[in-house]
Amino acid sequence: MKAKREALVSLFTAMREKKVDEDIIDLLMLINSIRGVYTTSSCSGRIGIIEEPDLGAKPLSRWLIKEHRPITFEEAKESLKNAQRGFIFLKSQPPIFHIVAESIKIGKKLHELGLASGFKYTTFKAVKDRILVEINGTEYLTAPLGKDGRVLVDDVYLKFAVELGNSMLIRAKSRLPRLKENFEKLKEELGEDELFYEVKRKFLT
Amino acid sequence: MKAKREALVSLFTAMREKKVDEDIIDLLMLINSIRGVYTTSSCSGRIGIIEEPDLGAKPLSRWLIKEHRPITFEEAKESLKNAQRGFIFLKSQPPIFHIVAESIKIGKKLHELGLASGFKYTTFKAVKDRILVEINGTEYLTAPLGKDGRVLVDDVYLKFAVELGNSMLIRAKSRLPRLKENFEKLKEELGEDELFYEVKRKFLT
Repeated sequence: MKAKREALVSLFTAMREKKVDEDIIDLLMLINSIRGVYTTSSCSGRIGIIEEPDLGAKPLSRWLIKEHRPITFEEAKESLKNAQRGFIFLKSQPPIFHIVAESIKIGKKLHELGLASGFKYTTFKAVKDRILVEINGTEYLTAPLGKDGRVLVDDVYLKFAVELGNSMLIRAKSRLPRLKENFEKLKEELGEDELFYEVKRKFLT
Repeated sequence: MKAKREALVSLFTAMREKKVDEDIIDLLMLINSIRGVYTTSSCSGRIGIIEEPDLGAKPLSRWLIKEHRPITFEEAKESLKNAQRGFIFLKSQPPIFHIVAESIKIGKKLHELGLASGFKYTTFKAVKDRILVEINGTEYLTAPLGKDGRVLVDDVYLKFAVELGNSMLIRAKSRLPRLKENFEKLKEELGEDELFYEVKRKFLT
């Protein structure tokens, strides 16, 4: 799989540059060591405050704060001082994994594995000839806080919304151990991929 | 397709009971008249205020107001008087269509059709032997408003959040005409399904 080699090189490069979420490195290593599957962009779940100049204009949006762990009320409050233009949202997002499978059969296994691990928004994306499975949770919070630098909520509300976002994040991340167990079982079934260890050795030496 | 016949009977029964969102009836008729595909649960997009007793406890949640058109600030405000227990959210959700395809090949076509019509969260769900395509937009708003009957936002904020939710709903629904055009093209390609007209005739007479 040429595409897997390229994906592994990207992953190890990103790890070396500390660009991979630390709390899912073990899991990403496990998944990529399985024969017939590899990960592309993945996120361990996050909470933050973002400014979006226009609805749906993602490329222009700007994080005022973004963390892969719960944030404090003070951090949220402080970050809002930098708000300038566009809609301000508090967002909490569950872990998400994009996994390419080499066959429809393996894709189906991944799909069932995600659902069985409690990630209820797990789906297939079979665009062109690539089988992509997105393992995704349901804990999405998108709370508007204001617009164009003007915050429309008070401290009581901000505290409430941050606590809610944090609970959703913790809840979503709590499924990661089960996901890992299920990938360990899948590895026993599908076997190890020598390519993974080959690329890993090159990066570790 | 025995499953399609059952799905059509459910759909026409629901229509007779006025349980189908009126603004997508034409589209649902069109999709179901195509050979090799049929719809299951679908929604034309909605906005509302919901109470959720516990995070993720969907079965126990309760709508205080729910409409398939923009709502007014006054309607939102009035509905909040009935809040009692659990987290209160203002939710705006885009149109969503669940479509079963009789083959992977048709499933892929539906998937591409959804994406090409601007529904960026369109995905495959290939559970067991059923190919299910979910045509879904990205315009999701989940704004917490308070908890256990206590509203933590003021009128300025509520007005702002309702307007934002309404804009997202309008924006999401504005893609429906393009979706319809694309299904008309798909019908030319895949052909008419006589089964649809047979079931329809039974219900109209």
